[in-house]
Amino acid sequence: MPRTRGDHEARRRDVSAAVWQVMATRGFAGLTLRAVATELGATTGLLTHYFPTKRALVTYALDLLEQRTGSRPRRGTGEGLAALKDALLDILPLTPEATDGNRIWVSSWDTALSSPELSADYARKYARSRDGLRDRVAAAQELGELPPGDPARVAAGAQAFVLGLVVQALFDPAAFPPRRQVALLDDYLAALAAPRPSGGDHGTQGPS
Amino acid sequence: MPRTRGDHEARRRDVSAAVWQVMATRGFAGLTLRAVATELGATTGLLTHYFPTKRALVTYALDLLEQRTGSRPRRGTGEGLAALKDALLDILPLTPEATDGNRIWVSSWDTALSSPELSADYARKYARSRDGLRDRVAAAQELGELPPGDPARVAAGAQAFVLGLVVQALFDPAAFPPRRQVALLDDYLAALAAPRPSGGDHGTQGPS
Repeated sequence: MPRTRGDHEARRRDVSAAVWQVMATRGFAGLTLRAVATELGATTGLLTHYFPTKRALVTYALDLLEQRTGSRPRRGTGEGLAALKDALLDILPLTPEATDGNRIWVSSWDTALSSPELSADYARKYARSRDGLRDRVAAAQELGELPPGDPARVAAGAQAFVLGLVVQALFDPAAFPPRRQVALLDDYLAALAAPRPSGGDHGTQGPS
Repeated sequence: MPRTRGDHEARRRDVSAAVWQVMATRGFAGLTLRAVATELGATTGLLTHYFPTKRALVTYALDLLEQRTGSRPRRGTGEGLAALKDALLDILPLTPEATDGNRIWVSSWDTALSSPELSADYARKYARSRDGLRDRVAAAQELGELPPGDPARVAAGAQAFVLGLVVQALFDPAAFPPRRQVALLDDYLAALAAPRPSGGDHGTQGPS
């Protein structure tokens, strides 16, 4: 039977789903052709058609991670401080899908840190993400919802906070259920929003 | 020549140093008998004497990480809020040694998350670390340096903040040199210490 473009696309979607599932349960350390083949109910031979090497599989997995992260649903209702909170909530593992995505991101750090190119690529991704947060911080400052100060510096702190919360929640979902994650984020934002008593040097040193 | 206990201990130290070096540069993903043998200038055959399986090598590496983390030098000069800051500074990658240790920790998350036993073990480790921070938060509250509120909740936030800052600094050391890390931590602690205008619900909900 002739294979149609539809067959091909459907098979690619199946392969992507299998790669995603293997990463979500076994991480990059467990990402092998054999594991993907088992997940797919296919032979390793078939998989080598898609991924001639382990490196090709890892590259595909990293692309898939970026693509799924980029196309995930996002909150977009608020402005100012609410918009900043939305962007930070979008990162946290508050749903099973977001938990899988985060687990795969955290798992990919080992691979990324051991390659200078990937490491630089990740640094750029996180810098872009901080730029987005910075713009939201600046907007909240203009609305008077956050005290003045270098918005890039506030954004760097906020990004650190949510990344660390992601890690905590992945290791200890019982101690960090969604409600607790949101409460901790609310604490963080409330502390950011509180006026500084000294009004002094917060955020005025710039990046150092 | 008979081999003495001293020889044996010296060789073990060499093996540990080689395992550590491989993890610091290649992560757990690159931790193989061959890589350790190359680092040690030994044969893979000799290494199998120490590590009959890959699993034995990984277990050894995880133990070594815990042992070196436990015995690393720590700041211990402050009390109250200064003691909290010391404990958080002790975590950050502010020196080459602390950077290696953190890089190996972050790298180990992939391995740890893919094993329920290791995952539970890591959750316990982080919970113990939070307990230590909680005691310091409570002491700072008693001294009036931090506003009242559930100290465990404040500790969870502080741990999230430093863990995320570790990740950022590892990926982008140029954007997060030691001085910048310390400045961001100072911002975080200043925001924690600022009195809440409402005096209201911060930290009063307890763990949720």
